[in-house]
Amino acid sequence: MKTAILSVGTEILFGQIVNTNTVYLSQQMNMLGFDVMYHYTVGDNPKRVEEMIDLAFQDCDLILTTGGLGPTQDDLTKEVACKALDDTLVMMDDVLEEITKYFKTLGREMTENNKKQAIMPSRATVFHNDAGTAPGFALEKDGKYIICMPGPPREMKRMFQKSVVPFLQSMIDGALYYRQIRFFGIGESMLETQLLDLIDNQTDPTLATYAKEGECSLRIASKRATEEEAEHAVDEMLEMVKERVGHYIYSCDDEELAQVVADRLMEQGLTLSSAESCTGGMFASTMTDIPGISQCFDRGLVTYSNQAKMEELGVSAETLEKFGAVSEETALEMVEGLKRVSGSDVCISVTGIAGPGGGSEEKPVGLVYIGFSYGDKKICKKIQMRNVNRSWNRHYTLLCMLNVIYRNI
Amino acid sequence: MKTAILSVGTEILFGQIVNTNTVYLSQQMNMLGFDVMYHYTVGDNPKRVEEMIDLAFQDCDLILTTGGLGPTQDDLTKEVACKALDDTLVMMDDVLEEITKYFKTLGREMTENNKKQAIMPSRATVFHNDAGTAPGFALEKDGKYIICMPGPPREMKRMFQKSVVPFLQSMIDGALYYRQIRFFGIGESMLETQLLDLIDNQTDPTLATYAKEGECSLRIASKRATEEEAEHAVDEMLEMVKERVGHYIYSCDDEELAQVVADRLMEQGLTLSSAESCTGGMFASTMTDIPGISQCFDRGLVTYSNQAKMEELGVSAETLEKFGAVSEETALEMVEGLKRVSGSDVCISVTGIAGPGGGSEEKPVGLVYIGFSYGDKKICKKIQMRNVNRSWNRHYTLLCMLNVIYRNI
Repeated sequence: MKTAILSVGTEILFGQIVNTNTVYLSQQMNMLGFDVMYHYTVGDNPKRVEEMIDLAFQDCDLILTTGGLGPTQDDLTKEVACKALDDTLVMMDDVLEEITKYFKTLGREMTENNKKQAIMPSRATVFHNDAGTAPGFALEKDGKYIICMPGPPREMKRMFQKSVVPFLQSMIDGALYYRQIRFFGIGESMLETQLLDLIDNQTDPTLATYAKEGECSLRIASKRATEEEAEHAVDEMLEMVKERVGHYIYSCDDEELAQVVADRLMEQGLTLSSAESCTGGMFASTMTDIPGISQCFDRGLVTYSNQAKMEELGVSAETLEKFGAVSEETALEMVEGLKRVSGSDVCISVTGIAGPGGGSEEKPVGLVYIGFSYGDKKICKKIQMRNVNRSWNRHYTLLCMLNVIYRNI
Repeated sequence: MKTAILSVGTEILFGQIVNTNTVYLSQQMNMLGFDVMYHYTVGDNPKRVEEMIDLAFQDCDLILTTGGLGPTQDDLTKEVACKALDDTLVMMDDVLEEITKYFKTLGREMTENNKKQAIMPSRATVFHNDAGTAPGFALEKDGKYIICMPGPPREMKRMFQKSVVPFLQSMIDGALYYRQIRFFGIGESMLETQLLDLIDNQTDPTLATYAKEGECSLRIASKRATEEEAEHAVDEMLEMVKERVGHYIYSCDDEELAQVVADRLMEQGLTLSSAESCTGGMFASTMTDIPGISQCFDRGLVTYSNQAKMEELGVSAETLEKFGAVSEETALEMVEGLKRVSGSDVCISVTGIAGPGGGSEEKPVGLVYIGFSYGDKKICKKIQMRNVNRSWNRHYTLLCMLNVIYRNI
């Protein structure tokens, strides 16, 4: 069923809040097999809400709204929805009773404008609000549905899970299944070129590529009569994709590369330490953002100055003098020193030129050496990336470090 | 000028990515004095993009689009925008040259579909993409404007700041001047309460508060005949704000707290080192993201395990045993050890419980100790923050660390 999500709230248009409701509802609705076609946001303005509802119904049969259900003057979503589906508002005594009860348990006085919230479209299926005062509701006419929910994310989510999902499930025709495949080391246009015939001939499953901060991903989606059929179709397509570009895949379940690496380390019971220069702690910070990582992450040494490289890791003054801080020799001495001081199973080091300054013709900005050791294995990987800017260079270096570990444990 | 923001991308409708572009653009456009009336999101479908553009132009004179500018089959925003404003697409040789150069420096092969990105509406003002291949552009007809930008936030933001803002400023009637004041240690509602009469009586300058990841900020904006007049009005208002809440201000020019701290350190020629446990390298990573910081940042030790705390910083086993890793005693021994090994002028340490696990009744999640030393000064600051989640707790801890340095050097 074609669906639109309409957010009502001037604060969203001001950029004062991030519209997490729409992200949440999009994920949930897609999982339930609804086709989310549009997101709209308008301010607290009844005329614009009305126009948006009219517009959405030109193409969609279901509109989810969030916001504009509260007790104040500018909360008008209910009135507009009621009018759009040709109903009239009536006071619902049982709803009024619930709201009254809510204020009592809260020990707060119920103001006159709160009674307004018990006025509902006469044909509405009312959804109780566990976490606030404004009830939600669903309203239907001639196969067109509007479902109105409150704006505060906590109230909306509880209502959605408890009341809206059961209501929606009674409306579903068919099942949707998708997988998000993640790649490193291949660009989006190259990925598309490799898969062009599959993408062009798509009807079901569909394939779509996305670029994302140095990585790219592929979504394979299918809609069939049953979830089993849809899943089977997606998995069959995934096998064809793997045959062509499987080498670059690091997750078939939309996981972050850091998470995939952490999972492998934890599964194998390996300990990890890092010695960073140009990334300045990003690697350690990224790894330690993963809950439970303390069982494998021992230490991260950010040896930014040459002094620190010598004192913390035992890099020799001669090496720094002869080959420079950004060199294969330094990266390897860093990882050797790190292994010595930490005793960790897996050690990784990095030294490079993040820019904007510090580059030369011989060693341009974007030149990075990654040292790695695991058991008897000791390698150094040289990378010359395109210099975008300091932040991106550091971010891409981090991905390269993770990739070195991923490929070698 | 009435403005609509149109996001193009099926992945947004799937809820796979949070639409941060729209939040960012809403904030920026409001600051520049544009009235953002609508947010729309549609998938990679030319017909729907076209319908949305038509709809937006019924009420607005300016549409900002993000997404759908890439090299692949489903990137169609450019074509639709061109048609909507009655222009034709032409190959632009200088743009093609730039893209070709981009691939050369990347050392990657340029595929055929990348050439498509050099095809532009003939009347377009083209915006160079510093951080990717897809250029953006502005197109006008009869006072209606479309500005198209790429979807990846990093590319979009750079293009917006570098090229789109100057373009927009040339469209504004009169002069707008604003300052973004940043606060730490005061919540948004308290800030608003303190400034309520100023905010309520606002005509020009206007005041607006924003909450942002543990900090809050205040925008003071004025639109006058000349920039000098607007600037004068804003600065007068700023003095009144300072009288009331000046204590919490750390920047009157929308700088990051880390940048403000780094500037102070560099001005005073002080060296800095850090020893982190719960933040796991975020502090070092944040500081080293600042260009030129190598003149003051010496080293960052991420001593995640107790073993690392003892070996790297000389924290005593007895202290860890008796008071625990998360304690004032450990934080102080960490910063003392750090001063000993690094010899840095300013040393900061942190140990805490980031969650989700690891908390107890006595030491709940969100408890943090920050050790600090500078000259003869040595302090420990205990913070018990509200436990939101691991990432937020770590982020807020980082801000507290920066604030400790800011207040004590």
